[in-house]
Amino acid sequence: MIDIAKCEELDRADPLRHVRDRYHVPKGMIYLDGNSLGLMPLAARERVRLAVEQEWAEDLITSWNRNGWFRLPHVIGDKIARLIGGGEGNVIVADTISVNQFKVLSAAVALRRDRTTILSDSGNFPSDLYVAQGLSAFMQGAATLKLVEPEQVLDSITPDVAVVMITDVDYRTGRRHDMAAITRRAHEKGALVIWDLAHSAGALPVDLLGIDADFAIGCTYKYLNGGPGAPAFVFVNPRLQNGSVPALVGWWGQTNPFAFETTFTPADGITRMQCGTQGILTMQALNAALDQWTDIDMRSVQVKSRSLCQTFVELVEHHCATFALKLAGPRNFDERGSHVSFHCPNGYAVMQALIARKVIGDFRAPDMIRFGFAPCYNSHVEVFQAAGVLAEVLRTRSWDRREYLAQKSVT
Amino acid sequence: MIDIAKCEELDRADPLRHVRDRYHVPKGMIYLDGNSLGLMPLAARERVRLAVEQEWAEDLITSWNRNGWFRLPHVIGDKIARLIGGGEGNVIVADTISVNQFKVLSAAVALRRDRTTILSDSGNFPSDLYVAQGLSAFMQGAATLKLVEPEQVLDSITPDVAVVMITDVDYRTGRRHDMAAITRRAHEKGALVIWDLAHSAGALPVDLLGIDADFAIGCTYKYLNGGPGAPAFVFVNPRLQNGSVPALVGWWGQTNPFAFETTFTPADGITRMQCGTQGILTMQALNAALDQWTDIDMRSVQVKSRSLCQTFVELVEHHCATFALKLAGPRNFDERGSHVSFHCPNGYAVMQALIARKVIGDFRAPDMIRFGFAPCYNSHVEVFQAAGVLAEVLRTRSWDRREYLAQKSVT
Repeated sequence: MIDIAKCEELDRADPLRHVRDRYHVPKGMIYLDGNSLGLMPLAARERVRLAVEQEWAEDLITSWNRNGWFRLPHVIGDKIARLIGGGEGNVIVADTISVNQFKVLSAAVALRRDRTTILSDSGNFPSDLYVAQGLSAFMQGAATLKLVEPEQVLDSITPDVAVVMITDVDYRTGRRHDMAAITRRAHEKGALVIWDLAHSAGALPVDLLGIDADFAIGCTYKYLNGGPGAPAFVFVNPRLQNGSVPALVGWWGQTNPFAFETTFTPADGITRMQCGTQGILTMQALNAALDQWTDIDMRSVQVKSRSLCQTFVELVEHHCATFALKLAGPRNFDERGSHVSFHCPNGYAVMQALIARKVIGDFRAPDMIRFGFAPCYNSHVEVFQAAGVLAEVLRTRSWDRREYLAQKSVT
Repeated sequence: MIDIAKCEELDRADPLRHVRDRYHVPKGMIYLDGNSLGLMPLAARERVRLAVEQEWAEDLITSWNRNGWFRLPHVIGDKIARLIGGGEGNVIVADTISVNQFKVLSAAVALRRDRTTILSDSGNFPSDLYVAQGLSAFMQGAATLKLVEPEQVLDSITPDVAVVMITDVDYRTGRRHDMAAITRRAHEKGALVIWDLAHSAGALPVDLLGIDADFAIGCTYKYLNGGPGAPAFVFVNPRLQNGSVPALVGWWGQTNPFAFETTFTPADGITRMQCGTQGILTMQALNAALDQWTDIDMRSVQVKSRSLCQTFVELVEHHCATFALKLAGPRNFDERGSHVSFHCPNGYAVMQALIARKVIGDFRAPDMIRFGFAPCYNSHVEVFQAAGVLAEVLRTRSWDRREYLAQKSVT
């Protein structure tokens, strides 16, 4: 079995080991929840300070031009595009991931009026499903959501499917879809595809243009470390950009917003996927966070992600073998994202006990303890220590306390 | 004519004069653009620092519970409710004003399926109109936007009108609508009303429950000083809350989001008007900004707003009488909001010359120079000085320079 010396050796050989210094790691904490809210990049703290104390306080309204606030959605979008194979000019940052899902889903549905089904799977993040259900209800059922099991997606793309709306990495189990195969099948059947990259961007290489994806959305506060509630991104394939109009539009998507015309004329390209004015403080935090990625190769990220996940699974299965833990999702690491979940009896309380010991993961109902491994800052030694603390918590039953067992809402 | 001594006297008698100290006023600047982006409250700077350096950097994911991030949309909403007569529990803060317009407009349209018209006026902010046009296009014209002149609104509420969608204060001219009369007439005719309070909240008393308004949305980065792109608010009358479902929904509007159910069940009350995760840094800036309002009476705000606007108009009309300036909007100050615009030949260049002299207003096409008066921090002496600089710029033709005349996009 892998030991601490081996973990130290893996860390010494890690080409990303110097990247950890760019982030603030709270003292004594093993943070394995970067798949929910990433650590703070030191540069983000300084960038927000500048945005508050200079751009807002001193430059005020002139910042829209002088400090480039107007262009931030594009500038940051291009920085993300590099990490997901989106191509320059095809990604924009604005709003939340659910709002962006609504934009692209409504645009896609409008492009396939003759079809009646929005296809998704039961492993999709619920908010994506809610967006589809909300749109469907508003359309009085002209398009309806059909939910299948993840492994049934490919065979469920029938001629009635307007849009296939799928999240690449399952937020609970870490299972990945085959993005290329699903996109290809959808196109063969005349359907459009929306990829949700919430748990992919910054964790794994994605090649949106390479697989000819139609639309994609994603999150920036997880592996991209943009900060709590940082704005989301949206990708539209260039071949669809000028033909797609969301149901939700606004003046930031208008051809010439400062002409203040009373008739909406959508701007060309990705610009029309914007709607209203974005929170600049969160935008600037994200902007600085993405500057940490310029020298990072996504293949290295994937290699390290896999190594961290695999090490954790091996250690946990070895040291916790007697405690009825069960790995969620596939055992083949090529088919996984960068987090690992175990079905675990009393999982909520176990996670509370871990958090009390400064090993931070999270809990996902009904019974999963979840650990995210951020290749930019997590180490193999942390993985070793976390597995050790988990084994200790289980062995000593230190989770069995009233304050740990009383379940509250958690992220 | 009013002189500087009179302005000083008015400032000494101003019950809000001490409030200015709560904001950062850039040295030497006369800032008359608080109707576009309000000054930075000193407390917001400290609050953002805490949000970055403690809540994000140290507390990370635990902040959702420990630091109350989850409840912020409600907590801040209640602080705004007090300023607009919205009532506790009826206002929530999330997303942008255009996104919120879409939520309430789609909810209202769904409540009046038997009617085909969305009524608005040509003085409405274009983004509101774009939202209606986008929704209408998606609905393939099942409801369409009808645009009338502001003074025709009341008589245009015919039985085909599903929703009257109006901005209280005209973003260019400052003209106010009679909110009570329009709401009453709409209800008589069976229509719903959405009020856009972008230029009202924090500038004038508004009594949403008193006039029995159905829906309202508004902006927090203008007179409420929430910071650039701070999130917007949405009000729903309690009698409509549990019967209204927007087309745009998400997991923050779900009954129990952390059950991660695959079927959307809208939460009771105003909660369902939320969709996704909000930017916490901008939220906390806004949170601190609203704490500056707890001791402020909106009647005093209105009295001061009127005094500042009236003083400015009198001074400009006196000192600039020979330069073909023309007041936009009504001369009766009871029918106005807290900004003043003049049609002005070469208005763009004139405003550039003013900005170069640190008198900050803005320009609105085709020919308006616009000045906002924020009762919380602007003074009569500033009004006097600004009018003097404007007269000087016009008298000396100092606007007549190539770099001022070359129009760029402006906010």
